Amino acid sequence: MQQRLAILGSTGSVGTNTLEIVRQHPDRFEVVALAAGSNVDEMVSQVEEFHPSLISMSTKEAAQEVKRRASHPVRAVFGPEGMEEVAAHPDATYLVSALVGSQGLPPTLTGIRAGKTVGLANKETLVMGGSIVMGEAKAKGVDVLPIDSEHSAIFQSLNGEKVSQVRRIILTASGGAFRDWTREKMNKATREEALNHPNWSMGAKVTVDSASMMNKGLEVIEARWLFDLPYDQIDVLVHEESIIHSMVEFVDGAVMAQLGTPDMKVPIQYALSYPGRLPLEGKPLDLAQLGTLHFRQPDLEQFPCLGFSYQAGRQGGTATTVLNAANEVAVEKFLEGGLPFLMIEEIIGEVLSRHQTVPEPGLEDLFEADRWARRTARLQLEKAL
Amino acid sequence: MQQRLAILGSTGSVGTNTLEIVRQHPDRFEVVALAAGSNVDEMVSQVEEFHPSLISMSTKEAAQEVKRRASHPVRAVFGPEGMEEVAAHPDATYLVSALVGSQGLPPTLTGIRAGKTVGLANKETLVMGGSIVMGEAKAKGVDVLPIDSEHSAIFQSLNGEKVSQVRRIILTASGGAFRDWTREKMNKATREEALNHPNWSMGAKVTVDSASMMNKGLEVIEARWLFDLPYDQIDVLVHEESIIHSMVEFVDGAVMAQLGTPDMKVPIQYALSYPGRLPLEGKPLDLAQLGTLHFRQPDLEQFPCLGFSYQAGRQGGTATTVLNAANEVAVEKFLEGGLPFLMIEEIIGEVLSRHQTVPEPGLEDLFEADRWARRTARLQLEKAL
Repeated sequence: MQQRLAILGSTGSVGTNTLEIVRQHPDRFEVVALAAGSNVDEMVSQVEEFHPSLISMSTKEAAQEVKRRASHPVRAVFGPEGMEEVAAHPDATYLVSALVGSQGLPPTLTGIRAGKTVGLANKETLVMGGSIVMGEAKAKGVDVLPIDSEHSAIFQSLNGEKVSQVRRIILTASGGAFRDWTREKMNKATREEALNHPNWSMGAKVTVDSASMMNKGLEVIEARWLFDLPYDQIDVLVHEESIIHSMVEFVDGAVMAQLGTPDMKVPIQYALSYPGRLPLEGKPLDLAQLGTLHFRQPDLEQFPCLGFSYQAGRQGGTATTVLNAANEVAVEKFLEGGLPFLMIEEIIGEVLSRHQTVPEPGLEDLFEADRWARRTARLQLEKAL
Repeated sequence: MQQRLAILGSTGSVGTNTLEIVRQHPDRFEVVALAAGSNVDEMVSQVEEFHPSLISMSTKEAAQEVKRRASHPVRAVFGPEGMEEVAAHPDATYLVSALVGSQGLPPTLTGIRAGKTVGLANKETLVMGGSIVMGEAKAKGVDVLPIDSEHSAIFQSLNGEKVSQVRRIILTASGGAFRDWTREKMNKATREEALNHPNWSMGAKVTVDSASMMNKGLEVIEARWLFDLPYDQIDVLVHEESIIHSMVEFVDGAVMAQLGTPDMKVPIQYALSYPGRLPLEGKPLDLAQLGTLHFRQPDLEQFPCLGFSYQAGRQGGTATTVLNAANEVAVEKFLEGGLPFLMIEEIIGEVLSRHQTVPEPGLEDLFEADRWARRTARLQLEKAL
């Protein structure tokens, strides 16, 4: 079957890797709509190559510049409404949701409501709105397929299996840039040190989240919604080499796992080609050459963000929205420079502890909680700095 | 669905583990027929507990003694015909084929012809008669499900996947008792040293085969027939800890694997409960406690039996039958004592090199090749000792 793609975040790392897959399989995929932020050059070149009929940029100026510079005719829209228009493009059969941060939720939900199959890379869609999003997907009969390597590994390990026969899922974690650092050293870490991920090349926000292990915490929450499992059945295991991308343990003790050389094209393509697979060039896994794989329990004292995630997840309602928003504000500040690394966790803990959870939130409650958490996080940052 | 079991080899390690699973799930499994060799005590106790209506032993005397000593009424037969009667028992829906050696082929084939689903632990069934056995299974629409941990891992990794999208399968090997030994030291190995398997507790023949890596070679041939893949797509990887039980690499580079604490009840039960899973008590996999997993290429100079297996497999026809028969004779001699360990491989190489392969053998050709190989191996042994 040919898929006609709308891509949210087409100039980011997931977006460009998605387009690389389209390039390799032109008979299987077609691009109909693209949304990005401010990277005009990249978007112009994507329009030239893939001929979408619609693009959206974050601002009107950027959108107009793309339209002016592209030699191929394209409708150009902008802002949050622009993203929703891309997500709901009538010609699209499949939505790749690869924006970074909470802005990803509304257009992803729009895509689901429009009946598109969703390849989901945007964690915040489920961290903020898991209950609403998965509820809508179920009501619409829409597949939400994971693009993240860990969730894709779990999804692949569940192939042909019953979720009712799962004992637990085991998300593997590289441990991030500060895996072997002391807390003292972590607190003095520079932006560059936090961005030095051992195994994966990803965007700045996600890489800092890896260094605090908040990324794994957000993945735990995402897994809860994607696979409809309680937190007691979701474990995290530190695995330095990022070769086993995650695992599922079943009631008979058998553990299924997906392994591979770290390459985000594998999970992206799997989400696009599911339930089949397509050929993909890449470095094949060579375990003999690697020689050893390492495993250890995550250290919750070294990485309290992981514990916050379980705590907020179990609290439910708006708590994970608040966790995510506080983290976004703190990480943004850290990336701007001047914030000690461990202040990220401090801000998150402080904001979480002040939050009055709304138990069964509607979409407006989520956005209100998101705004409140950002305000509160900024106030805490001002107080602290 | 309830399965009514006929078990060939009920007093061996696979047989007794199968019965342990029956004991745990009496609502799912019932025993209707059992076949064993000479272990009268164990068979009597199995009759008392599981109430089969038919048993078979290797000799008339053993069969009569079981019948006399059992307080539960049971029909008792014996010899090769007895095994075939057990395999084709009209009340049985499922045949567990767990005899050791070439004697396993005829009754397994009988079970397939009688339309029983087969749980296959007897390697020789496919090593000797792969083409015939899988041809009959296909014609009859009978599932042949692997019980061996490696093949079960591959079978589980193929769940929901297409064999046409497999790039290669990777059989893991512990490396056996002599993994880190020099050839010189191997040649002086005693029976007890060869029987000291690092990870699995199995029968004597299989354990010696592990020490020579012939076991892995036979598994390569078995995999070729079970999964209908050419030898170029079947690799072997040494993995000391026997935690990753085997793997499948797909065309997109994704590798699916099944892991677990070494426990043969897991693959046995999976073959019995397939396509579902049943709860099984056991030691759960704890990768953090293990800490590390190791991998390396197999050393074909240290373990030429592995190379012989690929060679015989590619030769096809009766060559794998001859490989297996020569190995059985040599290992039997080694277990009796007095044969230097490396003479096993020498005998196999010698017999293989003298064999005129019959390209598309019928069952009679296989048994003739089997007899010829045994005679030739014995002659070689006499010359050598």
